[in-house]
Amino acid sequence: MNGVFISFEGSEGCGKTTQIERLEQRLIRMGRHVVVVREPGGTAVGEEIRNLLKFSKANRLLTPESELLLFAASRAQLVREVIRPELDRGTVILCDRFLDSTTAYQGVARRIPAEDVYDINTFAVDGCLPQLTLYLDLDPAIGFQRARRRPAPVGVVDRMEQEPLEFYEKVRAGYLELVRAHPRRIKLVDASPSLETVEAALWEIVKPVL
Amino acid sequence: MNGVFISFEGSEGCGKTTQIERLEQRLIRMGRHVVVVREPGGTAVGEEIRNLLKFSKANRLLTPESELLLFAASRAQLVREVIRPELDRGTVILCDRFLDSTTAYQGVARRIPAEDVYDINTFAVDGCLPQLTLYLDLDPAIGFQRARRRPAPVGVVDRMEQEPLEFYEKVRAGYLELVRAHPRRIKLVDASPSLETVEAALWEIVKPVL
Repeated sequence: MNGVFISFEGSEGCGKTTQIERLEQRLIRMGRHVVVVREPGGTAVGEEIRNLLKFSKANRLLTPESELLLFAASRAQLVREVIRPELDRGTVILCDRFLDSTTAYQGVARRIPAEDVYDINTFAVDGCLPQLTLYLDLDPAIGFQRARRRPAPVGVVDRMEQEPLEFYEKVRAGYLELVRAHPRRIKLVDASPSLETVEAALWEIVKPVL
Repeated sequence: MNGVFISFEGSEGCGKTTQIERLEQRLIRMGRHVVVVREPGGTAVGEEIRNLLKFSKANRLLTPESELLLFAASRAQLVREVIRPELDRGTVILCDRFLDSTTAYQGVARRIPAEDVYDINTFAVDGCLPQLTLYLDLDPAIGFQRARRRPAPVGVVDRMEQEPLEFYEKVRAGYLELVRAHPRRIKLVDASPSLETVEAALWEIVKPVL
């Protein structure tokens, strides 16, 4: 029995986290064993890397290259410690961001050469790719408004959410390029309608993969 | 005016840190501007990575691939935040470990393919290589005895120092391979005699590079 590996991609405010929760509940009701993981994070080492990347004061001068390598370190750990063993056990893995995030954010938006991003991602994942990647596409201006409505803990600033709108436009262009380059693995879903409409659209794509 | 970049390599107990301090003092007396950095570390981000790699409980399950990427992240940050700007200013950089450590430890001793180590190191350092690398060669059995004599803070366990002797024999083999592959950049110095003898031998090699 083999598991199913599904990753979710998209920019801030696209509704990834909510859709993952809804899909998780649906799969559990169907009797499937589900593990939800997020990037960066998902392991003890990965959560420390997440904290460093997002909230630590030490990241003030973080360079794009160091950022990319930290994401890759978290990913390498997640694949070997969680994803591969769980897939062997027949689990459905729902992963909130995976290697395509690095291509869109560090590659396209921060301009690290595509070949370097590809080589480092390849080393980190060691052949463990999602069977299906759901890209929730949304105009960054709408995503920004949605993300701002979220309650944030007082005094906590997430470095990744401090980027200007222009940055997220580049991220979106990066994702659209990935959808064109990997049409079988990556499916674009319009994230602008209601949660229920997006949920139904995602389910139509997920169903045949299970 | 251009700086000078010298890295120090060697296994636990080889005396790197003491020799770096002595060389630093000598250079300062000569009127040179000297910056000593260490790997992993040397920047705010790097010191957090160092802590994660060496002392955090989260590193218990750390995989060799994630370890390599964390070292590379620390190195990428160090090159761009400290080493390159300081070299432009004419500084002498003394670096306690640099990219050769990754080749010897993660490559040879932990068996990550040489090509992967090379690609990731190349990305991390972006052409910023030491003019001179001093490898302090020592029988690991002697290094072990010396390292054990060092006073350690109570209750603190350094993950890297928990490896068996066999591991350090592989590290040494890795270094000796590097000395053969890069005879102009990497110079082997016998670290078994007294501190003063090693210091004098190092100085004979450093002098012409300044």
